[in-house]
Amino acid sequence: MITLYYAPHTCALASHIALEEADAEYSTVRISFADEEQRKPDYLAINPKARVPAMVTDQGILTETPAMLAFIAQSFPLAKLAPLDDPFGFAEVQAFNSYLCSTVHVAHAHRMRGYRWVDDPAAMEAMKRKVPESVAACFELIEHKMLRGPWVMGETYTICDPYLFTLAQWMEGDGVDPARFPKVGDHRNRMSERAAVRAAIAEELA
Amino acid sequence: MITLYYAPHTCALASHIALEEADAEYSTVRISFADEEQRKPDYLAINPKARVPAMVTDQGILTETPAMLAFIAQSFPLAKLAPLDDPFGFAEVQAFNSYLCSTVHVAHAHRMRGYRWVDDPAAMEAMKRKVPESVAACFELIEHKMLRGPWVMGETYTICDPYLFTLAQWMEGDGVDPARFPKVGDHRNRMSERAAVRAAIAEELA
Repeated sequence: MITLYYAPHTCALASHIALEEADAEYSTVRISFADEEQRKPDYLAINPKARVPAMVTDQGILTETPAMLAFIAQSFPLAKLAPLDDPFGFAEVQAFNSYLCSTVHVAHAHRMRGYRWVDDPAAMEAMKRKVPESVAACFELIEHKMLRGPWVMGETYTICDPYLFTLAQWMEGDGVDPARFPKVGDHRNRMSERAAVRAAIAEELA
Repeated sequence: MITLYYAPHTCALASHIALEEADAEYSTVRISFADEEQRKPDYLAINPKARVPAMVTDQGILTETPAMLAFIAQSFPLAKLAPLDDPFGFAEVQAFNSYLCSTVHVAHAHRMRGYRWVDDPAAMEAMKRKVPESVAACFELIEHKMLRGPWVMGETYTICDPYLFTLAQWMEGDGVDPARFPKVGDHRNRMSERAAVRAAIAEELA
């Protein structure tokens, strides 16, 4: 049994969708950022990083979206969410997800979480001003060099797809015009039609 | 046959050490940041992200340290660099490496690569001022919550170890006093004695 700790509108959605795709038995716990629940002792005992997502499994606790997605793919092999018998193919999946985690998500985070890297309010505003450019540069690379289509890795749906979908949803809020990235837009539309995606979003926004 | 593209004093050292540990057949190509080789067409054809490391394999090109490390572990199973038959253990390894990539390395990068996230020179200086605090907060978590000892995952050496070693070497440059983190310091000393670590560093600094 798996318990996913999430907050709405965060990257936890990627793991939530993957659990749905895997037909996993799981439950969810919503963490309220408004109430700063992520910094309270109960949650810090689960994830001392004070962030979501976290996933409690029978064997222990996992954090970090790329690791959680790989765990879901490996734990539910029948769902075929990653090329499990091909180290190179698996590494390509991990590389894409690592780029989302360490570059795309980080560029985005400079809009709302600038306090992680700076104290000066004027510098925080300066960070916000660059977000449309730095996030767009990431999607430029994804559009032209990384997203094979129809799915990230080509013909086969993988754990890259819910993660890209999750981060691509932040584009408008980051001041990036989605019309610049038609392949990413097609991918978002295709994802939105999947039952797993609808189920995860419906639960998070309920 | 594997070709590793690296620059000295970068996170490429982690993959370099792992290739040595795996007893892999590989060669290296040094990219000169001083000459901006990472932005020239020849290198962009290998890695359009204009960063190191990149790894050319018989099956294609890989980037992103956590993915490259996992590929090395899976491609050279005899070296036992990760718990390959245990999805939870493997995910713990990936989670640690993902934290290094997306949080520790990113905190560090605000000292020298602030232009990624801001244009204003005063804001870039404000970013630099917070690096000692934000990097130290990462090592606080690693010291007290993540590094089991003697190796990151406990008794068994994994691909987490060369990656932690690589990033921990940047601590002094980031204005963080290593004496605050004795477990990380012990780990650095233990790593420095390994033949694979000495070989990789000797080649990079030759």
